[in-house]
Amino acid sequence: MRFTSEQRLDDGVIERRFTLDEIPGILWTPACAPAQVPLILLGHPPLGLRKMYPRLVARAQRSAADGFATATIELPGSGDRARWPAVDQARADLRRVMEAGEPVGDEIVDALVLPLVDKAVPEWQAALDALLSQPGIGGPVGYSGGVISIGIRLAVVEPRVSAAVLFAGSLVPRAIFQEARQVTIPLHVLMQWDDEGNDRQAALDLFDAFGTKEKSLHAHLGGHAGVPQSAGDAAAQFLTRHLK
Amino acid sequence: MRFTSEQRLDDGVIERRFTLDEIPGILWTPACAPAQVPLILLGHPPLGLRKMYPRLVARAQRSAADGFATATIELPGSGDRARWPAVDQARADLRRVMEAGEPVGDEIVDALVLPLVDKAVPEWQAALDALLSQPGIGGPVGYSGGVISIGIRLAVVEPRVSAAVLFAGSLVPRAIFQEARQVTIPLHVLMQWDDEGNDRQAALDLFDAFGTKEKSLHAHLGGHAGVPQSAGDAAAQFLTRHLK
Repeated sequence: MRFTSEQRLDDGVIERRFTLDEIPGILWTPACAPAQVPLILLGHPPLGLRKMYPRLVARAQRSAADGFATATIELPGSGDRARWPAVDQARADLRRVMEAGEPVGDEIVDALVLPLVDKAVPEWQAALDALLSQPGIGGPVGYSGGVISIGIRLAVVEPRVSAAVLFAGSLVPRAIFQEARQVTIPLHVLMQWDDEGNDRQAALDLFDAFGTKEKSLHAHLGGHAGVPQSAGDAAAQFLTRHLK
Repeated sequence: MRFTSEQRLDDGVIERRFTLDEIPGILWTPACAPAQVPLILLGHPPLGLRKMYPRLVARAQRSAADGFATATIELPGSGDRARWPAVDQARADLRRVMEAGEPVGDEIVDALVLPLVDKAVPEWQAALDALLSQPGIGGPVGYSGGVISIGIRLAVVEPRVSAAVLFAGSLVPRAIFQEARQVTIPLHVLMQWDDEGNDRQAALDLFDAFGTKEKSLHAHLGGHAGVPQSAGDAAAQFLTRHLK
């Protein structure tokens, strides 16, 4: 892990850019922190860190105020990383099918999501190794947001992740749906009731499938991007309850 | 409205019992309050105030700490009020059907719930008249919990109620389901995912039907009585956002 820049944001939060095996990432730490702070991994959709930065830094600053370090890394095939033709093709297929108003077949979802999960999850685990070896950053670790299939796989395979906020989506491969049954950590699941990109019943079925004994679903009226401020507050309180 | 007793609870909250046209009720006010505090009407199932008291006083004390007055009245046919043979009969019919594992027909739900709503809602409105004329109690008014059909009717017909926390249930008459479409105030709907007394799909359909532009559904794993502490906190924060 190599730090490439460091700056102090308005509220004193330290933002450090890094690369890890050529994967770009960002680490945010609170201005005034005790010796060790817990860590939240900030998931995001595969649109590139540059595009996602405004939303990510807002979540990081909120989390820092709650006493958390936060970190994120670029997803494979996104942002400044090498293009990934197979996934680009699957995304083009998805767009074509959705614009035509046709049902999204399993093969498109599998082709789009499974390679991403298979490649991204070990990268997030490697990032976790590196981040937890930094002075001042300790456990426990939470995961929040982003591609829900990555969150599910990470919750199952990574024992250092002890609570997760997931954003319910319907583009979940059947294989990942089965993995959801194996999740045992506390989950706080956000859902937009009229999400134009996600099927409501599929999202409810996924919530039902999670194997954990502690899960809650928070559905708000509105489309995909309409998550209210209060939902972010509630998710932050969930992480504080479970990680502090 | 005639006050019949007054006591100061451990945390300084003032608890006053009253009767209003022979209906017993309780008013709780914060120990240290500004000139005017907003009011939350505490709904409850028709099990009698005496039986519900421990849960009601806990909600009242929590609300007082948030700066609210709270009040509740006995439901018709419950507690120390005159028995109501028709509703008792409907309740017995419901129990028999549920114990037999048979589907609960519309006619049982209508017979059980509609008379209760028709009689209770004007009583809660009369209580609101009396409570808001007390010194120190102002608007805005919230409604929280209890029989969801009463909450729905009150939200539709009583303009002084400006936000409501409802507990999703499935024993909702079709007529009330239609009224739900007319609700325009912000709603925070709680639901237990494995509620043994309520049908999940019916509860989701009801949430979908609410006509308001601001509604959220908070579903927690567990049975009817398993609402976690954090869900109460979130509901309290919702009322604080909308009433203060």
